[in-house]
Amino acid sequence: MRDRDEEWMRLALTFAQSAQGQTSPNPMVGAVAVKEGRMIGLGAHLQAGTPHAEVHALAMAGAEAEGSTLYVTLEPCNHFGRTPPCTEKTIASGVKRVVIGCIDPDHRVAGEGVNRLREAGIEVVVGILEAACLQLNEAYFHHRKTGLPFVTLKTAVTLDGKIATATGDSRWVTGEAARAEVHRLRHIHDAVLVGSGTVLADRPQLTTRLAGGGIHPLRVVIDSQLRLPLDTPLSDVSVAPTWVFCTEEADRKREQELVKQGLRVFRMGEEEVDLSRVFKTLGYEGILSVLTECGGELNASLLRGNHVTEVKVFMAPKLLGGKESATAVSGENPLKMAEAIHLTDVKVEPFGEDLCITGKPLHEEKGANH
Amino acid sequence: MRDRDEEWMRLALTFAQSAQGQTSPNPMVGAVAVKEGRMIGLGAHLQAGTPHAEVHALAMAGAEAEGSTLYVTLEPCNHFGRTPPCTEKTIASGVKRVVIGCIDPDHRVAGEGVNRLREAGIEVVVGILEAACLQLNEAYFHHRKTGLPFVTLKTAVTLDGKIATATGDSRWVTGEAARAEVHRLRHIHDAVLVGSGTVLADRPQLTTRLAGGGIHPLRVVIDSQLRLPLDTPLSDVSVAPTWVFCTEEADRKREQELVKQGLRVFRMGEEEVDLSRVFKTLGYEGILSVLTECGGELNASLLRGNHVTEVKVFMAPKLLGGKESATAVSGENPLKMAEAIHLTDVKVEPFGEDLCITGKPLHEEKGANH
Repeated sequence: MRDRDEEWMRLALTFAQSAQGQTSPNPMVGAVAVKEGRMIGLGAHLQAGTPHAEVHALAMAGAEAEGSTLYVTLEPCNHFGRTPPCTEKTIASGVKRVVIGCIDPDHRVAGEGVNRLREAGIEVVVGILEAACLQLNEAYFHHRKTGLPFVTLKTAVTLDGKIATATGDSRWVTGEAARAEVHRLRHIHDAVLVGSGTVLADRPQLTTRLAGGGIHPLRVVIDSQLRLPLDTPLSDVSVAPTWVFCTEEADRKREQELVKQGLRVFRMGEEEVDLSRVFKTLGYEGILSVLTECGGELNASLLRGNHVTEVKVFMAPKLLGGKESATAVSGENPLKMAEAIHLTDVKVEPFGEDLCITGKPLHEEKGANH
Repeated sequence: MRDRDEEWMRLALTFAQSAQGQTSPNPMVGAVAVKEGRMIGLGAHLQAGTPHAEVHALAMAGAEAEGSTLYVTLEPCNHFGRTPPCTEKTIASGVKRVVIGCIDPDHRVAGEGVNRLREAGIEVVVGILEAACLQLNEAYFHHRKTGLPFVTLKTAVTLDGKIATATGDSRWVTGEAARAEVHRLRHIHDAVLVGSGTVLADRPQLTTRLAGGGIHPLRVVIDSQLRLPLDTPLSDVSVAPTWVFCTEEADRKREQELVKQGLRVFRMGEEEVDLSRVFKTLGYEGILSVLTECGGELNASLLRGNHVTEVKVFMAPKLLGGKESATAVSGENPLKMAEAIHLTDVKVEPFGEDLCITGKPLHEEKGANH
């Protein structure tokens, strides 16, 4: 029984993940209804405001749902949100057993879904493939726990750590496969964050350009002095929204011009933009995940300021050299090699001839004790 | 038959490789004598001046060698070197078939071994597992072909390409497993090369410190101005020889002092040491392989000067940052990212939590056309 439970839950996970990038601010959820070893319904949550995964699965099952087992990767909700509670639909359908991947930490759910189902006489099992179900919605859980977005620091370097020449040329460090993966990352992150230096140097669009489309992220610019020109692709908010964070002192007239073009401008920090307040603001605005695509100075501030949840280093098998070439992380000079920020849970994936090295900065935990 | 040939040759390769690091300036060679599907003798070349692999295998086989098949990873020699020709021993032993991995490019062999065996009526097969047999002695073949040593540029970096802090602290970038691998690399290379800056900053011993011992490489220092102090571990030539390369202008008195301590001093180049002449000299002196363990400036000269056969980047999963931290390759500032030196035949190996990325600079070929 247990073994079959894992099989069906694995399927539900696959359905959930198939909607990656399109459910925010909701989590990805998948569901399967099973009767006598036969799948009678399946579903995935596709977009906030549309039916939840278990509702799709039960609708497909119809009258057959009576007496069946429902597998769902996340605890069904027990509250009226944009849709009615899934627990009531489940109870009404006559399901006799519900298998849940993990509990929803959202304070409006948090075990209440399980309680309601059990009260109604349904057998409930919790924690099948729990680690995978938690991993699937890592950003969602991080946001629920901390109020802050899950921040992925992305950079693309040569083996000697260079991201650009001294003159700023960076086209291209990595090959096509790695660059396509970056567009996939933009698709699955709610926002992409850059510094104004990158905007001035590269005039990026920061949109998701995947074959067949994709969802553009919110574009966030850290721009202390409001240097952002009015004519870059980021100023065209008909493509995707752009939010600019500047200091209290930044030019008021430029703010008005940007706002007139439809950008949002936030003031926080005196001499520099206060990054802690930036991420608090983004979290408060319902941004679950941020992909940063910055230069060495902002990368150093993000890392040393303890704002980074995960690092992704795309690495090309080449050596650039150059005393003054730009490196991935600059900032203050550490005195000791021991001050380096260690990554844990390190994973290495190939993309064409490049590698992507992913890991989590250990300093996050330490930072919490300061 | 062919299948069994590969099996026995694979064994011979294993025997050959077991003496890695101890045969220079000779190649590694392994041999197996087989009769009626049974191994009757085996051997490996252990050290220059001692018997060749096939001689060991035939000695072990004794009278049984009559009518047997001899597998040898490299063509048997047909000349008097420090030992008598292996072809004559093979013929005298009554072997009826000889299977050879690859031809020896040494001008004193180069097919003559095969010819002599065939003249004597022995069946000879050439090219079983040829690629692996060539790979095994890559440095030896490179030296025979070019007269130059096989140069392995080794560096140890953080993910952002840093090798040390701005103040020079580099202990440690990588973990124990990676550092042990560097000692293994010293064991299998004839020489290790550093710049005087590294000697002054780190006072390295550059010896092979493996559990149970190992062979110390020749220590080569590039030291334009003869800044090498008289009291560093490199000045103690009772441990291992040290050769110093300086410019024509370097201090004569310091040269005398170093020579008095037993170091060799070579003068080549006006303002800087002429690296082309350094490697020609090393090749001429019978050095088949050089491991370089240099800082960013010398690494840039080695790479841009087209002296590097293979690159090994040990990479620790951490980020150091620092505007002025030392990076693995510095030197002149390239204008375009496209000027980066591409690596081919890229291999990624884990060492503890670190990675080692190995590849061959593509510019070597291009360089030949300049």
